[in-house]
Amino acid sequence: MINVKGFKFSGISCGLKKSKKKDLGLIISSNECISHAVFTKNKVIAAPLIVSKEIINKNKLRAIIVNSGNANACTGDEGIRNVKSVINQAAKVSGLPKNNFFISSTGIIGEQLDVKKINTKLSKLFKDAKPNKSVDFAEAIRTTDKYIKIESTKIKIGNKTGTLLGIAKGAGMIHPNMATMLCYLITDIKINKSTFKKFINYATKNSFNSISVDGDTSTNDTVLGMSNGLAGNEEINLKSKSAKKIYGEIEKIFYNLAKKIVADGEGSTKICKIIVKGAKTEKDSKKIANRISTSLLFKTALFGSDPNWGRIIAAVGSSGVNYIDQRKVDIYINKKNLVKNGLGKKISSFFNRTMKNKEIEIIVDLKIGKASSFVLTNDLGHEYVDINSLYRT
Amino acid sequence: MINVKGFKFSGISCGLKKSKKKDLGLIISSNECISHAVFTKNKVIAAPLIVSKEIINKNKLRAIIVNSGNANACTGDEGIRNVKSVINQAAKVSGLPKNNFFISSTGIIGEQLDVKKINTKLSKLFKDAKPNKSVDFAEAIRTTDKYIKIESTKIKIGNKTGTLLGIAKGAGMIHPNMATMLCYLITDIKINKSTFKKFINYATKNSFNSISVDGDTSTNDTVLGMSNGLAGNEEINLKSKSAKKIYGEIEKIFYNLAKKIVADGEGSTKICKIIVKGAKTEKDSKKIANRISTSLLFKTALFGSDPNWGRIIAAVGSSGVNYIDQRKVDIYINKKNLVKNGLGKKISSFFNRTMKNKEIEIIVDLKIGKASSFVLTNDLGHEYVDINSLYRT
Repeated sequence: MINVKGFKFSGISCGLKKSKKKDLGLIISSNECISHAVFTKNKVIAAPLIVSKEIINKNKLRAIIVNSGNANACTGDEGIRNVKSVINQAAKVSGLPKNNFFISSTGIIGEQLDVKKINTKLSKLFKDAKPNKSVDFAEAIRTTDKYIKIESTKIKIGNKTGTLLGIAKGAGMIHPNMATMLCYLITDIKINKSTFKKFINYATKNSFNSISVDGDTSTNDTVLGMSNGLAGNEEINLKSKSAKKIYGEIEKIFYNLAKKIVADGEGSTKICKIIVKGAKTEKDSKKIANRISTSLLFKTALFGSDPNWGRIIAAVGSSGVNYIDQRKVDIYINKKNLVKNGLGKKISSFFNRTMKNKEIEIIVDLKIGKASSFVLTNDLGHEYVDINSLYRT
Repeated sequence: MINVKGFKFSGISCGLKKSKKKDLGLIISSNECISHAVFTKNKVIAAPLIVSKEIINKNKLRAIIVNSGNANACTGDEGIRNVKSVINQAAKVSGLPKNNFFISSTGIIGEQLDVKKINTKLSKLFKDAKPNKSVDFAEAIRTTDKYIKIESTKIKIGNKTGTLLGIAKGAGMIHPNMATMLCYLITDIKINKSTFKKFINYATKNSFNSISVDGDTSTNDTVLGMSNGLAGNEEINLKSKSAKKIYGEIEKIFYNLAKKIVADGEGSTKICKIIVKGAKTEKDSKKIANRISTSLLFKTALFGSDPNWGRIIAAVGSSGVNYIDQRKVDIYINKKNLVKNGLGKKISSFFNRTMKNKEIEIIVDLKIGKASSFVLTNDLGHEYVDINSLYRT
């Protein structure tokens, strides 16, 4: 496993998961980091986000503590007190200031966090931390994820080598409640704070904010970037020679993690990239791509490997974008034209065959403007219904 | 079957449905009607709607001709020519002017209509028309509907009796493409045109525009009202003594038909009325109710009879309405309080039991403003996936 200078990881079980699987994780840096986080747009947000939003502004992060098994969402004042209790105990055990800690939670919502279970194990969590234990951390933040999600890369910057490491856990809502999409990007590359912020924001937009598993928005979604600057490189800003390359690698890590999240969506059998071109604005193209990606009819057709363009064009028409001209719309499936100027071609064996692929690309060209964007989504099959219709009790 | 003065009906097979079931229907009035139609908001609309939108403005309707088995949508100029061909043939066969005819189509989209099959049978269609054959018409407009949908009522107006009759076919998207929600309301009550228009618009809003089967919007949806004024009553306007009563009956007919459409949604096992109260505007409350009703997580929980309020409150938070305060939200299931000020109560046996009902009412109270509205929806289970993932070929 790749190491990132100055960072240590651990992941242990504290008993929140009945299965006794790992459910408490730590990432800790040897020094304070610059950091930036992007949070869910849901207006109902979990207690750790309410607290972490304050802490991140102080820009003194050294450690991330994450529990799985309970999202600490919709838990009122008691939920907030519980987050603060974990921070207090972590500060006590580690000897670090309270504003060094960022807390995340993921799992069931609406139930109070059993904070004693966490606090009792914090000492062990810190003692266990090692530079090569990122897999333990990735294990500890899993909920229904079928596999852990880690991406990393090394970049040459002058005569120094910087490292980027991303660890995520998947969206996809779970029994008995919802899960959360979490992603932590840590790096030793020295980077200007406002530049880092731009990189994290923009890469999030082109990855995690361009995926749709079931159109539902979690109360806990968080993308957090942290840089401790220990690689020894000259500080990177927007004008630096390596800036573009570093951004490209962050985007690639985020995109690959996002793709893994979609592929691991509940009951997912295939993933589909929906590209909408020829819109007047990027926002419009995203609106249309989102509308297609959340259409139950489209998602079930994808599950059934049905090249059902009628459902695609109907979703385009109901997206709320008003200047669509149905006599102009072209649709391509895996690069081959299926609809020209709103009229469908014969469903050849190519289309029936290609829809059975595990990865499918659909291009919708409105042929009005010049803007385009994409959304990654998956199909909707029986397993999704099974997982999500199970009784809570 | 209830008769409406001056109206005749028929429904026959013209061979568009391979099953040889009825697929061509007619409603015809002995004189010209005042009429008003509400159409789908989808920007991609079917050929018959493009033509009918022109005809309805002339306000000289006498006849509605509907075919099932083919929606004549996404069929370009040829689709338009085919609608006009049916009108020409209908005018020839009946001796009526062309602007007397309103055409609807429902069924597969993206395939050209076999207009010869229709035109060959038009003569028989007119000959077959009888006052007591509304059931034949209702049969002829079915696609995947499990049952026909008819509602009617008689109203005393002074010393005259007026009749209202509504016939609908269901939404719910079908293999291999989409179906259409259609509703025809005919009446012999004499009514002022602008008043009738208001009644149809408002009743549609409180019924068909307040239901969600799968969040997808058809290319063919149409609600059409026609009045031939033969009941002999004094013309009704907004100030008439009976106006409120007549509107109430139209709304009731539309609501009952809408409820039947939702209950007949593909794979539906139960229906749910989602009421959102305490919003600042009706539009906001509708936005939130719509967001809940299109949440896959909510719909699968409904299928699984799971009182999963976390999914409801998460949908509320992601509705795009910005002033929601999670510490104020109350949620009731079948009149019993489950969430108070954003905090969940114990899931008692009442909630586990009541979620198994065939009809469920959920109230979300934001406790901010005074506006409220509702959406009727259904659950999402395996049969929906089965129906909608079938291969086209």
